[in-house]
Amino acid sequence: MPRSFDRAAHEVRPLSFQRNFTNAAGSVLASFGDTRVLCTAVAIDGVPPFLQGKRQGWMTAEYSMLPSSVSRGRKQRDRGGKVDGRSVEIQRLIGRALRSVVDLSVIGERTVWVDCDVIQADGGTRTASISGAWVALCDLFKQMDDKRLLREWPLRSQLAAVSVGLVDGQVLCDLDYVEDSGAGVDMNLVKNSDGEYVEVGGGGEGMTFSRDVLESMLAVGDEGLAQIFAAQKAALAD
Amino acid sequence: MPRSFDRAAHEVRPLSFQRNFTNAAGSVLASFGDTRVLCTAVAIDGVPPFLQGKRQGWMTAEYSMLPSSVSRGRKQRDRGGKVDGRSVEIQRLIGRALRSVVDLSVIGERTVWVDCDVIQADGGTRTASISGAWVALCDLFKQMDDKRLLREWPLRSQLAAVSVGLVDGQVLCDLDYVEDSGAGVDMNLVKNSDGEYVEVGGGGEGMTFSRDVLESMLAVGDEGLAQIFAAQKAALAD
Amino acid sequence: MPRSFDRAAHEVRPLSFQRNFTNAAGSVLASFGDTRVLCTAVAIDGVPPFLQGKRQGWMTAEYSMLPSSVSRGRKQRDRGGKVDGRSVEIQRLIGRALRSVVDLSVIGERTVWVDCDVIQADGGTRTASISGAWVALCDLFKQMDDKRLLREWPLRSQLAAVSVGLVDGQVLCDLDYVEDSGAGVDMNLVKNSDGEYVEVGGGGEGMTFSRDVLESMLAVGDEGLAQIFAAQKAALAD
Amino acid sequence: MPRSFDRAAHEVRPLSFQRNFTNAAGSVLASFGDTRVLCTAVAIDGVPPFLQGKRQGWMTAEYSMLPSSVSRGRKQRDRGGKVDGRSVEIQRLIGRALRSVVDLSVIGERTVWVDCDVIQADGGTRTASISGAWVALCDLFKQMDDKRLLREWPLRSQLAAVSVGLVDGQVLCDLDYVEDSGAGVDMNLVKNSDGEYVEVGGGGEGMTFSRDVLESMLAVGDEGLAQIFAAQKAALAD
Amino acid sequence: MPRSFDRAAHEVRPLSFQRNFTNAAGSVLASFGDTRVLCTAVAIDGVPPFLQGKRQGWMTAEYSMLPSSVSRGRKQRDRGGKVDGRSVEIQRLIGRALRSVVDLSVIGERTVWVDCDVIQADGGTRTASISGAWVALCDLFKQMDDKRLLREWPLRSQLAAVSVGLVDGQVLCDLDYVEDSGAGVDMNLVKNSDGEYVEVGGGGEGMTFSRDVLESMLAVGDEGLAQIFAAQKAALAD
Amino acid sequence: MPRSFDRAAHEVRPLSFQRNFTNAAGSVLASFGDTRVLCTAVAIDGVPPFLQGKRQGWMTAEYSMLPSSVSRGRKQRDRGGKVDGRSVEIQRLIGRALRSVVDLSVIGERTVWVDCDVIQADGGTRTASISGAWVALCDLFKQMDDKRLLREWPLRSQLAAVSVGLVDGQVLCDLDYVEDSGAGVDMNLVKNSDGEYVEVGGGGEGMTFSRDVLESMLAVGDEGLAQIFAAQKAALAD
Repeated sequence: MPRSFDRAAHEVRPLSFQRNFTNAAGSVLASFGDTRVLCTAVAIDGVPPFLQGKRQGWMTAEYSMLPSSVSRGRKQRDRGGKVDGRSVEIQRLIGRALRSVVDLSVIGERTVWVDCDVIQADGGTRTASISGAWVALCDLFKQMDDKRLLREWPLRSQLAAVSVGLVDGQVLCDLDYVEDSGAGVDMNLVKNSDGEYVEVGGGGEGMTFSRDVLESMLAVGDEGLAQIFAAQKAALAD
Repeated sequence: MPRSFDRAAHEVRPLSFQRNFTNAAGSVLASFGDTRVLCTAVAIDGVPPFLQGKRQGWMTAEYSMLPSSVSRGRKQRDRGGKVDGRSVEIQRLIGRALRSVVDLSVIGERTVWVDCDVIQADGGTRTASISGAWVALCDLFKQMDDKRLLREWPLRSQLAAVSVGLVDGQVLCDLDYVEDSGAGVDMNLVKNSDGEYVEVGGGGEGMTFSRDVLESMLAVGDEGLAQIFAAQKAALAD
Repeated sequence: MPRSFDRAAHEVRPLSFQRNFTNAAGSVLASFGDTRVLCTAVAIDGVPPFLQGKRQGWMTAEYSMLPSSVSRGRKQRDRGGKVDGRSVEIQRLIGRALRSVVDLSVIGERTVWVDCDVIQADGGTRTASISGAWVALCDLFKQMDDKRLLREWPLRSQLAAVSVGLVDGQVLCDLDYVEDSGAGVDMNLVKNSDGEYVEVGGGGEGMTFSRDVLESMLAVGDEGLAQIFAAQKAALAD
Repeated sequence: MPRSFDRAAHEVRPLSFQRNFTNAAGSVLASFGDTRVLCTAVAIDGVPPFLQGKRQGWMTAEYSMLPSSVSRGRKQRDRGGKVDGRSVEIQRLIGRALRSVVDLSVIGERTVWVDCDVIQADGGTRTASISGAWVALCDLFKQMDDKRLLREWPLRSQLAAVSVGLVDGQVLCDLDYVEDSGAGVDMNLVKNSDGEYVEVGGGGEGMTFSRDVLESMLAVGDEGLAQIFAAQKAALAD
Repeated sequence: MPRSFDRAAHEVRPLSFQRNFTNAAGSVLASFGDTRVLCTAVAIDGVPPFLQGKRQGWMTAEYSMLPSSVSRGRKQRDRGGKVDGRSVEIQRLIGRALRSVVDLSVIGERTVWVDCDVIQADGGTRTASISGAWVALCDLFKQMDDKRLLREWPLRSQLAAVSVGLVDGQVLCDLDYVEDSGAGVDMNLVKNSDGEYVEVGGGGEGMTFSRDVLESMLAVGDEGLAQIFAAQKAALAD
Repeated sequence: MPRSFDRAAHEVRPLSFQRNFTNAAGSVLASFGDTRVLCTAVAIDGVPPFLQGKRQGWMTAEYSMLPSSVSRGRKQRDRGGKVDGRSVEIQRLIGRALRSVVDLSVIGERTVWVDCDVIQADGGTRTASISGAWVALCDLFKQMDDKRLLREWPLRSQLAAVSVGLVDGQVLCDLDYVEDSGAGVDMNLVKNSDGEYVEVGGGGEGMTFSRDVLESMLAVGDEGLAQIFAAQKAALAD
């Protein structure tokens, strides 16, 4: 089966990071093919109780899908007091990943809120969220720096995430929804621009994988991540 | 004080209804100046229990603001099991208004879900929601008609909404956030293209208004509605 | 169809405002025909966070129907963490309407809680709530004044609310449940005793109305409001 | 300290059971001195899942205090999704007690909902609830019997409840709020007219009691219960 | 029908209070036959708002059943925001009972949390909880005393609880699940080692009982309590 | 710093899987040093709606920590309607991992509920949960097989999980709480007895890791997993 956008196994979909999408300090529409996530970052005065008086900041993330973002039917809103388990898992991952590249000790007693709202879902929303949120953080911190709110530049390195998976015996990069549904094994890789891993996470719903497949997935992921790092840089150069 | 976009008292902000914004059957980004609301409409099989077996459809609306949509700070998500009272009030209005122009007896046992998600808020989000959702319904019903799912065309007439308000003694049309904050009295008018009222609602937080002011607001509202009706038609002609 | 209590189109049902119904500072059983709402008002020390230290008060309202108040079946309590949307909408209206006639700057850092609990529902519970709550506020403020807790008398004017509707082509005042169910269009008018509007709100579930009908409804509403203002005065004179 | 209403240790407060207080099938305003509870009973078609198809009915009770019912301050509504623990305990007691005198096998597949809403609280709201709800059940079943909905008369016997307590070393019957606050030990007794116990429950918040005190409380309770049984009969004779 | 563990009507099941079951300060696995409850007690700095600055402590209890603790099926967790009514009732009883023997004025501004988690349920979980929690409190206070956190020894007396019931016309002590299910009447007695009652509570689901039965239940309960007091002492002597 | 239980970097803590810990069909107390998790498995008739009529079963897992399980303070229960995000993440992992080794098509229309309740937490609760739950599943399926409820044996292979981490530059296996708190990077590995990976997940809170460290962690994890597989087999041989 040919891949969407006529791409090879190691290629990601056409990427774009549209900055200043809304008026929020950091506001980026991240597009990975048909997947589109609005990633915003704002800084609010104050920190959670466990950090008060420690002269450092905090950063937290929330992830949500718009009801109309899914390709079939409609996703119910998280309004009944119970947040969807998958959303909880994803927003915890986004927060952890971003915190690995941010020095929270230089932003004052402020909380950075990162919001990743999926406008359209076609697979890979969590990796688009992380990759887009990093660009939004650049814009937020640039604005804070202009207002002289930072003691030093808080970003330690560039950060991106990509999905890889095993589909019909072949390791593919940046799976779309159809590929993801057919994937036996599915893994998300988060790396920084120093070549270090930030998060490695994957498994199968009902399937397992050998050490060889794991090695292939890591290799293919590296190729995809290089393309995403380049697209982030290009977006920031505009 | 000059108005944003250099407009007169009876003029609405620059309008656009960007159709097919996402892949949902009806998907319109309604822009009233800097206010931007994503209005989607999808039809799902089945109706609520009180309508089962009655061979007719149902339509319901939900309204929500993205956390980053506000111009200052960040709006908390409705996740704690308690939906914000203002959102409840607005989504009930949207649903009632749209039901007034739709014949639910011809769409089969389906539920039309209208979702209005505010991407950026600069005043008038409820009127942008209603006006945009009407365009989204046109697109949804067109698609359903193409699939021969409708017994007849369900839309009885065109529908639009506008806000009017009394600011420093002057009646203005389509208030932006700054005007809205300064308005003593604020009214939302929903009308159909037959010149009939669908909803009239307004009041003041701590202020009252005379019958004369009410008459002026109705008149100015009619001028604004004409501009919105025209913009909806233009969008559908594309 | 003759109206309940043999009344003309412009007449409200037999009214009473039974003061001191319970021991709360302001406690009024408002009866509009068979509709009975217990309206209470109490002042509690303290204000919400956004007003702290501003040396002024606050006022908020809650509305609820007893499970047994409905004429058929039983209304479930709002206990599942989700307050009924209609109740939210009504209590927001009650609060806004009352705040329009109260000077909160003279009551100190106190919160006035207005509770409207429907004992028996036969249409028009929101207008009975507003009209009765105004009487309860008089009694509360009288008691506070006796205790020298007010810098000045906080009530700027008298306040009442009435419903009007279009039933079988005729504009009627103060609809009971049967009329309300048959009404195509239904409007609530809140006015003060200076003849100014506080809130105008109405529409139809599936029906629309012309400018002429709107004018008629405003006129008939004025007649009903005069009767309610008189009944409030009579109750306070006792 | 003399008791309210100049009564002796073994005497209950002035009692009344005002029937047909609202239009619900069973609707009784139970007054024990200044304590006033609206007790209603309605029958709704259908039973909970665990009883479906078993050709018998069910009965359940809910208890709630109006926010303005308390003598000081204001009681918050149970709206946050968490029902007050005391209310849960009381409504479970009311349901159990009433089920002991009702034969649910003769009322068809219906659920009897008993609602006890405290209008004014001055101690003893749970015993007023049980005693008043029994009268409301009589009226509900009378109405159902008139409509030929009962196979047999479902009430096996009369039911009443009374509180007793140890205040300053003296055992008192039907404590009001002031006495209740000063009581070391507080017990609720529910009995039927055959002289059998239905529920015995009591203890102290920080105090204990001897077997002798227990015997005295049982004896004084019997005197109070006789007065309540008589008042219920008188109310039903009207 | 012979009783489990071949015991007479007045005998409790084999008892054990296994101390230091986990690392919590007070941690006791209370076993009454096959009923096993983990009772823990810890002291946390701080008291609820209503006690702040009063230089005294507070004590509260929570009760819960593990999903797998029931003999048939599985008990759902209390996660939906609504705590099971029976659990609320039981944990309120546990808290009240324990507070009757603890002098909270000598423990400083600390809150003692007692948690009773049912590992396996075979009837009598609330009485096992109270009896076991008392032992856990001894261990907690011993540890606090060693750290010199107590002004005086806070336990005023020993505390135990037992269930009694009427099964097939016979009064039995410490009912297991099968007996409890068949019991017409079921009572829980909480007493201290001075022979005083702390709580007496019981009734029937659909059954009533005479004064004679009540007297028998009190007598049989005393026999059971003596056995539990002895087992607590033995456990503490280890 | 020497490791607890005097063990080498590649060694897990003393392990035990105590079967039949309670009466549930599968009931195992898994101990990894001082970490103790009660893992139970029961099968309940019926499947979720999305599987009805498909003649296959379902399996789901829940994870929770007892309030007293933590070494410091007390963990609040998940009762407010909001389940702790970490618990959600862990129970989703447990469910996915177990489903990879179970053939749900042979167990009929039943739901297997796996409950992992942490009695005492000293690091590695999620890996103890998975490893222990697998033993509990063996016991559950053995019992179901004896009752002839299985079409075939549903377990495809053995399953175990282990944690590895980077502490002070050294890769360690099966971290206890102190090590875990000091770990820069922390990874959980789930493998089956065919040497295939089921889940690989890890990252750092504020730290990153190289490919070399990843390889070391995978190698050390394999050594730990071998010890756990052996302990599971030994437990089942008893």
